[in-house]
Amino acid sequence: MEQLKQKILNEGIVLSDRVLKVDAFLNHQIDPVLMQQIGQEFARLFRDEGITRIVTIEASGIAPAIMAGLELGVPVIFARKHQSLTLTENLLTASVYSFTKQVESTIAISTRHLSANDRVLIIDDFLANGKAAKGLISIIQQAGASIAGLGIVIEKSFQVGRQELEEAGFRVESLARIAALEDGKVVFID
Amino acid sequence: MEQLKQKILNEGIVLSDRVLKVDAFLNHQIDPVLMQQIGQEFARLFRDEGITRIVTIEASGIAPAIMAGLELGVPVIFARKHQSLTLTENLLTASVYSFTKQVESTIAISTRHLSANDRVLIIDDFLANGKAAKGLISIIQQAGASIAGLGIVIEKSFQVGRQELEEAGFRVESLARIAALEDGKVVFID
Repeated sequence: MEQLKQKILNEGIVLSDRVLKVDAFLNHQIDPVLMQQIGQEFARLFRDEGITRIVTIEASGIAPAIMAGLELGVPVIFARKHQSLTLTENLLTASVYSFTKQVESTIAISTRHLSANDRVLIIDDFLANGKAAKGLISIIQQAGASIAGLGIVIEKSFQVGRQELEEAGFRVESLARIAALEDGKVVFID
Repeated sequence: MEQLKQKILNEGIVLSDRVLKVDAFLNHQIDPVLMQQIGQEFARLFRDEGITRIVTIEASGIAPAIMAGLELGVPVIFARKHQSLTLTENLLTASVYSFTKQVESTIAISTRHLSANDRVLIIDDFLANGKAAKGLISIIQQAGASIAGLGIVIEKSFQVGRQELEEAGFRVESLARIAALEDGKVVFID
């Protein structure tokens, strides 16, 4: 997706050969117009899949997911990483290690919002090692729902996430695929 | 805002005389169409204020804020509650006590995205005691930016948040104002 790649080149900051900082438009400050374009692109890619729910994970997945949900006309569920007084009953959970936060955490979705009749599109901001994606897949499968695929904003293709998800049979659509972070520069696939 | 009140009546769950659960459309599952309507309403209310940035707080503030940002054509910044590898430098911080999570946490915004030239609209999902709002106000004032007001999705008017914010001189626009949570029922102001 050309607008996204340009934004990454213009405003992304390469912190190391593994860490790309996109706090200017995705992970801290968010560009709503770009998010709308991203939502439209995910909707275009998965329009014929009979999606009934989008599942993402707080916090940075919410903006692209809500825009895709608006385009597809379906509700968005964001998995919670943190305990809340109002989210206590009948939880489906999975354990996820976060590379950028360097902590293991439990993510949770209430059984109230996900059923065996659902066909789910997973959306997330980054795909690297695929830990968050696999946690979401586990939760969705616990609910008995089917998974149409994963819509990823930025994929670090030099890490194993996509390969492992594809080997497990999942469709992965990433709007920007990064081959390498080298000498402070972003190198895209294609 | 009538659609929001109807949604609260139809899908909100009164957990106690102080806790309203709206996990079906705002705090866990999100209704994108309702969020768009909410964004349009905030934009209508603050259209003439010369807003340059929207500031909210992860996670439930993001969806209404991004829709308001889309309508107003301005970027959205969400304050972080949790440490991240990619958000480390030049942070403005405030300490906030969360009633629903019952923990004190530090919220943070990078100085890179907020300056003295900004005129800020604060958006959040709930206003109760105003702790999160005051934390955001502190951060925005540390940046030297001016505050046009606060756009709140659901206000618990029986708690002190609105009164204290108005006494401090801030404009507060809440799309649903709850007078009381009584006998499992929601009673609105008006």
